[in-house]
Amino acid sequence: MKSHVIALAGGVGGARLSYGLAQCLSADDLTVIVNTADDFEHLGLTICPDLDTVMYTLASLNDPVQGWGVRGDTRHLMQALTRLDGEDWFVLGDQDVATHLLRTEQLKGHTLSQVTTALCGKLGIRIAVVPMSDQSVRTQVETEQGRLAFQDYFVRRRCEPVLKGVTFEGIEVARPSDGFLGALQNPKLAAIVVCPSNPMLSIEPILSLPGVRERLRARSVPLIAVSPFIGGQAVKGPAAKMFRELGLPVTSSGLVDYYQGLLDAVVIDRADEPPTGVKVLATDTLMRDSADQARLAREVLQFAQTL
Amino acid sequence: MKSHVIALAGGVGGARLSYGLAQCLSADDLTVIVNTADDFEHLGLTICPDLDTVMYTLASLNDPVQGWGVRGDTRHLMQALTRLDGEDWFVLGDQDVATHLLRTEQLKGHTLSQVTTALCGKLGIRIAVVPMSDQSVRTQVETEQGRLAFQDYFVRRRCEPVLKGVTFEGIEVARPSDGFLGALQNPKLAAIVVCPSNPMLSIEPILSLPGVRERLRARSVPLIAVSPFIGGQAVKGPAAKMFRELGLPVTSSGLVDYYQGLLDAVVIDRADEPPTGVKVLATDTLMRDSADQARLAREVLQFAQTL
Repeated sequence: MKSHVIALAGGVGGARLSYGLAQCLSADDLTVIVNTADDFEHLGLTICPDLDTVMYTLASLNDPVQGWGVRGDTRHLMQALTRLDGEDWFVLGDQDVATHLLRTEQLKGHTLSQVTTALCGKLGIRIAVVPMSDQSVRTQVETEQGRLAFQDYFVRRRCEPVLKGVTFEGIEVARPSDGFLGALQNPKLAAIVVCPSNPMLSIEPILSLPGVRERLRARSVPLIAVSPFIGGQAVKGPAAKMFRELGLPVTSSGLVDYYQGLLDAVVIDRADEPPTGVKVLATDTLMRDSADQARLAREVLQFAQTL
Repeated sequence: MKSHVIALAGGVGGARLSYGLAQCLSADDLTVIVNTADDFEHLGLTICPDLDTVMYTLASLNDPVQGWGVRGDTRHLMQALTRLDGEDWFVLGDQDVATHLLRTEQLKGHTLSQVTTALCGKLGIRIAVVPMSDQSVRTQVETEQGRLAFQDYFVRRRCEPVLKGVTFEGIEVARPSDGFLGALQNPKLAAIVVCPSNPMLSIEPILSLPGVRERLRARSVPLIAVSPFIGGQAVKGPAAKMFRELGLPVTSSGLVDYYQGLLDAVVIDRADEPPTGVKVLATDTLMRDSADQARLAREVLQFAQTL
C-alpha cells in the first residue's frame, strides 16, 4: 500500500504541519524536505534557520511564541557579544548556538544531509528531515534599496524594503539532495504536501533546484498545497507583504496561480474564497497548538486519499 | 625616568598580579605578555585561556572562584551541547563563547595581537595586553600515558597522568610578537616581572620563543620572579605536582634553579625558606582579593627599585 508522504517545508508553518504529519504517520512514512536557501554564514557559524525550526519543532524543543529557536532559551552570549561590540542584529540563543557550533564543525567533513541526520538522531527525531540540497543556495532579495542577502532583508531590515524580486544564488549548480531524490523515487510515495510556508522564500527554492519541477510534473501522486494565507494575511512572516509588492493577490487563487499549474489540490481556510482549476478542501488552517497541527495533517492526508 | 614594567603572565596568578600592577602604574607603563601555548582549537573555535583570564581579570569580569571564565556566566550552551552529544569536557560559559566566536572570526583577517587589542579596547582595558607570539604554539605534555595535547592533559584528564616532560609544538618557527619585542626595547623599561604563574606551562613557553632568553640575558633592568609556591604547594593549578613528578623541589630554591640563572631576584612567601644566589623579598604572596593584588604589586615594584 502506498503510504509515504513528502512534505516540502520552510520554517514555522512547515515545521508545524510536519509535526502534525509526524503524529499521523509512522516514522518511515514521512520525509520532510527543508528549504536551505535561508541559510547563511554569521560569526563563522553556518546557520540553517529552517532546518533548525523543523528540528526543534519535531523534538518539541521549539519556542512556539517567537517561532524560532529553543523554548526558554537565554541570550547571555548575545549580551556579551553586544558588550564586545560584535554583530548582534541576528539573535542567537545560548542553547541554539550549540546547534550552530556542532553543525559548522561537522560540515567540515560531512554533507549537510549527514549532519542533519546526526543532529536529528541526537534529538530523538525518527522521521527523515532532509535538506533540499547539500550544495549552498543563498537567497538574494532584490528591493528598492538594492540587492540584499536574505537575512539582511529578513532580520536586520525586518522585510521593510519594497520587494522587486527574489533570486537564489548557486541554484543552477546545486543538486537536490540524495534524500530528496530518493523520496521522490520511493515506490511507496502516496502524496506530496506543500506546507503553509512562504511560497517565494521557502517553497520556490526547493522547486527551483535543477530537475525538481520536471520531476514534480512527471509525478504519479497528488501534489497538495496548504495555503499560508488566511483572510488576505499570512499567518506568520512576510509572504502577504511580498505577494502584494509583486502585484500578486494574497488569496488562495493567487497561491494556485503562483505555482503555475503544479498543484492538484489546495487546502484553504474556511474564511477564504476557493480558487478554480484545482480540488479544494476548506477547513480551519490555523495551527494554534499541537492538536491543531495533528488535526490539519489528518485532514490533509484524508483529502489526499480522495484525489 | 624609567617607569615601564613588563609582566610575563599565564592564567590566574598572572592575571591577579597584572591587575595589581595595573592599579599601581599608569596605563602606558605596563605591558602584560601572555602565554598562548595553552591555546587550542575546539568546536571550530580558537580558545585562548590565558589571554581570556588576563582580559576578564583586568576588566573585572573574571570569576574569582573558579579562576577562569566570566563571573556569573551560565552554561546553557553546554547543556544543549550535551543534549546533542557534543564534546562537553571543556566547559564553555555562554558569555565566554561570545569572546571565542569574535576572536575566531577576527583571526581570519588579523593577528592575535590585533584581535587581543581590539577585544581589550571593547572591555575598557587601557594597559597593553600582548600575546607572546602571533604564531601558533601548542603545549604537548609527555606523560606515562603518552603524549597529550595540553587541554586534554589539563582539563579532560585533570593533570592526573604522571608528567615526563613538556614540549611546545611550533616554538622553533614562532616569533615573539611585535608588542613583546617592542616592550623589551622600550627605553623606559624599568623592570621585568615574572608573575606567579606555572613556570613550566605558562612562563617556559614565553622564555622558549626564539631569541627571548638571549634578549633577557642581555637586559639592563632587573628580572624578578614572584614565586607561585607557598609552603610546598602551588596556590592554584598543577605546578607543584608537575615539579614533584620531574624531581624538582617545590620551593623558592627550586624555582630559582628552574630559571637557570635568569633571575636577579625573587619574591617569596614569608612561610618559605629564602633561596641563595638572588635577592629576596619575603612577604605575603597570597592574593585573596584586589587589595592583596595591589599591595603585592606595590611591594614588587618597590623591591625592583632597590635592585
